[in-house]
Amino acid sequence: MRLAIDAMGGDNAPEEIVKGSLAALKANPQMHITLVGDEAKIKPLVGSEPRLSILHTPEKIEATDQPVKAVRTKKNASMVLAIQEVKEGRADAVISAGNTGALMAAGLFGVGRIKGIDRPALAPTLPTIKKGKGFLLLDAGSNMDAKPEHLLQYAIMGSIYANKVLEIETPKVGLLNIGEEPGKGNELSKQAYELLREAPIHFTGNIESRDLLNGDVDVVVCDGFAGNLVLKSIEGNALAFYSIIKTELLSSFYSKIATALLYPKFKSIKKMMDYSSYGGACLFGLAAPVIKAHGSSNAKAIFTTIQQACRIVEKNVVGTIYETVLKTKDKWDVTN
Amino acid sequence: MRLAIDAMGGDNAPEEIVKGSLAALKANPQMHITLVGDEAKIKPLVGSEPRLSILHTPEKIEATDQPVKAVRTKKNASMVLAIQEVKEGRADAVISAGNTGALMAAGLFGVGRIKGIDRPALAPTLPTIKKGKGFLLLDAGSNMDAKPEHLLQYAIMGSIYANKVLEIETPKVGLLNIGEEPGKGNELSKQAYELLREAPIHFTGNIESRDLLNGDVDVVVCDGFAGNLVLKSIEGNALAFYSIIKTELLSSFYSKIATALLYPKFKSIKKMMDYSSYGGACLFGLAAPVIKAHGSSNAKAIFTTIQQACRIVEKNVVGTIYETVLKTKDKWDVTN
Repeated sequence: MRLAIDAMGGDNAPEEIVKGSLAALKANPQMHITLVGDEAKIKPLVGSEPRLSILHTPEKIEATDQPVKAVRTKKNASMVLAIQEVKEGRADAVISAGNTGALMAAGLFGVGRIKGIDRPALAPTLPTIKKGKGFLLLDAGSNMDAKPEHLLQYAIMGSIYANKVLEIETPKVGLLNIGEEPGKGNELSKQAYELLREAPIHFTGNIESRDLLNGDVDVVVCDGFAGNLVLKSIEGNALAFYSIIKTELLSSFYSKIATALLYPKFKSIKKMMDYSSYGGACLFGLAAPVIKAHGSSNAKAIFTTIQQACRIVEKNVVGTIYETVLKTKDKWDVTN
Repeated sequence: MRLAIDAMGGDNAPEEIVKGSLAALKANPQMHITLVGDEAKIKPLVGSEPRLSILHTPEKIEATDQPVKAVRTKKNASMVLAIQEVKEGRADAVISAGNTGALMAAGLFGVGRIKGIDRPALAPTLPTIKKGKGFLLLDAGSNMDAKPEHLLQYAIMGSIYANKVLEIETPKVGLLNIGEEPGKGNELSKQAYELLREAPIHFTGNIESRDLLNGDVDVVVCDGFAGNLVLKSIEGNALAFYSIIKTELLSSFYSKIATALLYPKFKSIKKMMDYSSYGGACLFGLAAPVIKAHGSSNAKAIFTTIQQACRIVEKNVVGTIYETVLKTKDKWDVTN
């Protein structure tokens, strides 16, 4: 197993990325990691680890860079060179905590799409009330104006990932919609519903945004606009509720004491909603495993994302998507 | 002020609707209310109140009824007759806690649209972290596949309401989008952005779903699909967080005691997120004030919704929308 990791992406680069990488090497004796980035900054953090090499480059893509332009002009950016490692066969998968749009663009330019997949999707795993489960959301913001057949492709890719990597035998796939009954929604969701009914997946029908956190389905498909809205709504609502609870609970002496008593509980609630234990967001549809770690990833989140990348490679998720699409595409491809 | 109220709509009809109506009559000496519904059920609850009359009908539309079909076949349903009261000049506004889609359909068939408004929008007020403010969301689910000019019309209607009824001098209007910068989003939001920039409103740019609860804007516009997604996401996330907090906090003896100490605080948090203090959802764009009270409205929520209806009538919101649209439509109507 050989991984290429963008050492310069995200809020805590390169320190936490190096730490997470070293932990992963310890846990996986057969793994080799190439850290791509500024050697002067990375080397002092690494120590002597023979299974870790550094590919030096001073250039990097910033979070604020315009994705496509950045990838085109910064040809030696750490993210772009990490993708090159996979493209040229020196690595099996890429991880970056940097600019999501740029990673998608670098992936498209570098390794391209799986044949038969029209649009790659960004697929994070989100927490659910039922501990340790979570659900895969795709597309979370890669492809804004999706067509029904794109949602079908997302469903197939998500289902394969949930089966192979999350080890769910028959993953339940839901269509994000504004009502549970068939026939609800906008034109896109109505047409996608009909395609999903016929697809080689376990389609469980529409799912409303209010039910997402209940964990009743394993994979939720939608266009990138809707996916990004619900993703950020969950994030923002969690922060808003914490802020309200904190303000209210700390507003009197007695409640301060009671809150102190409850502190370990609040911590465990926060942990339950912690994205980092669920790994990074896969860029499904690219012809190689490319995984976006959360921008604020700490060492633990990087470690989890590396483990996730390993399973994606070991279980041949990309190959399985390719074969499944090849087998079934004639049946449902309306673009042919 | 004369109001027609569907006494049979919602989970707590007719008891809570009658209670809320009686409280409103007490608070407004010039008000007259016509309760529309089953007289045998309503009369025993009313007592002797000369400013309340009952328009009897045994028919009603159920929450599960298919909206358009129900309005067409149940011509004497309480909701349909309440709309008739306004249409025929016997009432100034209508309130119902019943089937939202049916209320919209009954409104469209009964009183029709304001000239110049292509699609009416459902506009609830949602709570924000900053106490007592809230923001108006439109469209929350009436018009699924909206066009850019519909969003512009929503912005104008929402802005007028926020100014007249919420008494915000210059309401800030935001466009729900997946990024803050101009140029972000799907085709709809990109085109709507350009129209909103030129509109006679205080347009503050894009707003992401994660920032909605912060209360930085007063009016948020989007298509009905996106609006319904974020509305139900906020509802569902709140329930999920409460459920997690409850389970976690009550899982040990000490935390049970601490939680009991905090009980009044939790109650005040719940109250802060209580929709009922914000009134009902207006159906903006209809040629008369039609307001949808929440399906689970209690007497207090009905009272608040009645007060809201009074302000809408007193401030001539519908007339102002009509005049504003008439004055500005030539400039921006791309459908002419």
